[in-house]
Amino acid sequence: MAIDISSGVGQVVAQRAHFDAPLALRSGAVLPAYDLVYETYGTLNTAKSNAILVCHALSGSHHVAGTYVDAPDNIGWWDNIIGPGRPLDTNRFFVVGVNNLGGCHGSTGPSSINPASGKPWGADFPLVAVIDWVKAQARLADRLGIDAWAAVIGGSLGGMQALRWAITFPQRIRHALVIAAAPRLTAQNIAFNDVARQAILSDPDFHGGHYYEHGVKPWRGLRLARMLGHITYLSDDQMGERFGRELRGGSLGFSYGVEFEVESYLRYQGDKFAETFDANTYLLMTKALDYFDPAREGAGDLAAALAVAQAKFLVASFSTDWRFAPARSREIVDALLKNGQDVSYAELSCDYGHDSFLMPDPKYHAVIRAFLGNVKI
Amino acid sequence: MAIDISSGVGQVVAQRAHFDAPLALRSGAVLPAYDLVYETYGTLNTAKSNAILVCHALSGSHHVAGTYVDAPDNIGWWDNIIGPGRPLDTNRFFVVGVNNLGGCHGSTGPSSINPASGKPWGADFPLVAVIDWVKAQARLADRLGIDAWAAVIGGSLGGMQALRWAITFPQRIRHALVIAAAPRLTAQNIAFNDVARQAILSDPDFHGGHYYEHGVKPWRGLRLARMLGHITYLSDDQMGERFGRELRGGSLGFSYGVEFEVESYLRYQGDKFAETFDANTYLLMTKALDYFDPAREGAGDLAAALAVAQAKFLVASFSTDWRFAPARSREIVDALLKNGQDVSYAELSCDYGHDSFLMPDPKYHAVIRAFLGNVKI
Repeated sequence: MAIDISSGVGQVVAQRAHFDAPLALRSGAVLPAYDLVYETYGTLNTAKSNAILVCHALSGSHHVAGTYVDAPDNIGWWDNIIGPGRPLDTNRFFVVGVNNLGGCHGSTGPSSINPASGKPWGADFPLVAVIDWVKAQARLADRLGIDAWAAVIGGSLGGMQALRWAITFPQRIRHALVIAAAPRLTAQNIAFNDVARQAILSDPDFHGGHYYEHGVKPWRGLRLARMLGHITYLSDDQMGERFGRELRGGSLGFSYGVEFEVESYLRYQGDKFAETFDANTYLLMTKALDYFDPAREGAGDLAAALAVAQAKFLVASFSTDWRFAPARSREIVDALLKNGQDVSYAELSCDYGHDSFLMPDPKYHAVIRAFLGNVKI
Repeated sequence: MAIDISSGVGQVVAQRAHFDAPLALRSGAVLPAYDLVYETYGTLNTAKSNAILVCHALSGSHHVAGTYVDAPDNIGWWDNIIGPGRPLDTNRFFVVGVNNLGGCHGSTGPSSINPASGKPWGADFPLVAVIDWVKAQARLADRLGIDAWAAVIGGSLGGMQALRWAITFPQRIRHALVIAAAPRLTAQNIAFNDVARQAILSDPDFHGGHYYEHGVKPWRGLRLARMLGHITYLSDDQMGERFGRELRGGSLGFSYGVEFEVESYLRYQGDKFAETFDANTYLLMTKALDYFDPAREGAGDLAAALAVAQAKFLVASFSTDWRFAPARSREIVDALLKNGQDVSYAELSCDYGHDSFLMPDPKYHAVIRAFLGNVKI
């Protein structure tokens, strides 16, 4: 059968799983019950040995690939890598995307109804850590009958989940693909996150996180958070090449309206995001990023923390990524090598900064394809 | 006479100069009259040939050195470099600091009364460009009887003023010290400025720039702008060394309060700044930064724009400065060398990122001292 690699997974349907067993969170809080929304692409084989979990980053969701029948323009956020003949080849693999706990795309989160109050959780939704997401994902795997993932893959915060899977459930993950990630945030990373959070928290429409009940949204703060985030996702050079000092109107306007093209781009990105995303989810996701630090379990030694892992690793980074620079990925690689663990490392020269992990760069895709080609199913 | 180099200029007194002649601004607007507040340190010699102008950056003022009799803790922002025996040696030089037009430290700006309305200018204060500041400074020089500055010196936006002096008034500046500057902002620089501006402009207490009349201040927005600025002033490494991932309370709090030390630092800096600085001035200063681009006058060729300069140049940059990285200073040096102009360049390995230009680093101070030692007075 000829494979048409130009077409992806086509129309997809989101599914919902309800979990009644309470989930003890890293914070000490307990989530009594929760829903996870997910999508699957491809077919789970009889041995249930061909499943790949795709973990999303800060603003992602379970909608990783394909489109919806009633929303043909809503293409999954990593569609370019998933489908028949694509690196995550759905002719071979059964690919699962799940919206993380605390999210705002259908899984239980701050905008869901808190059964205890009958109102949206809002600020009462407990803060979650990466390990909580991984535990919830493990229960979804149970539900799907998947004992062990053939692979867990993610970029950025998604890569941290892949790393966490390898440490927390070493028997349940055979391959970990950790892309554009870091073993923990630097002070500068945390600082950017905190400015973004302060923008939301200090928005008068935040109402202590209970804005749903006031019929408003802290969109100003969320918009600023996203604008700031975007600067850190792109490389300086890329912004220079794309926008330079081009003026919108051809000459200086001497006003606070849009003058430079880059202002137009950033404001547009901020506006679009603030319309659709939930501010409490944004806050919570940035905290999960800040908290992630598996080396703490090895008394500060990442190699000690990773020693339990049994997965084969692919670590990939991008030369123009200054949010999680290649040096951060090499920390992971060095720790694995110190343990004599199985790791491949690719440092790619893609131009798109941190966002490179989302791009259909041929060399990057070839690396993923080659690594997954060696996965036995 | 023995010089006590441990003591600075001591107590100083700010002075005020009123200018009645209208000033035609770069934007096309005309400022009918204005005040400039300034300070001087040392003594102007009879030949009036020993005057150095110090230009301030975004948040600086005319109070460059010394203290006030009624505010002994209010030390000038660049006190460490000015005084008897210091690199800007007040035993030799007459040093002048001036608050720029549009400022909020006494010179005419958005918080001053607009004579046309009897109310604060607010958003009606015209946007100013670096060339406007330099023209106003030239009138102050006229008032002080200074035909030509022995030197004009500044860091960051202050360095841009030194560069502008050399182009606009080539006969009135004998030496230009351009420190931690750039010939123009990159798209990323503009992007950071625009997020800062949007934080202020979207603060509900901004009231279109006329907040003075409402008895409020857009302190939330100004605080965010300053927090963001601070991240770009420090280097990633320095933040790591200074704050790392240290936790304020020793363990994770799972809340949006201060958890990491870096959050505490940034919020404190933001709060302190928002209490004292004027938001309209902040907006205007960031615009002056964005607009600065003398190469435009050379049809995009910086060397062509600089060809008129007669000053001897010292250009200095800091290895850890990622806001205006050394490569940006080298653009200036390359343009001057292309013209065969007299330029010395120092790339210093100071640890404090962009803020290095304010620090009493011995090697850095030695470079300034040596360059000024060759200035004939």
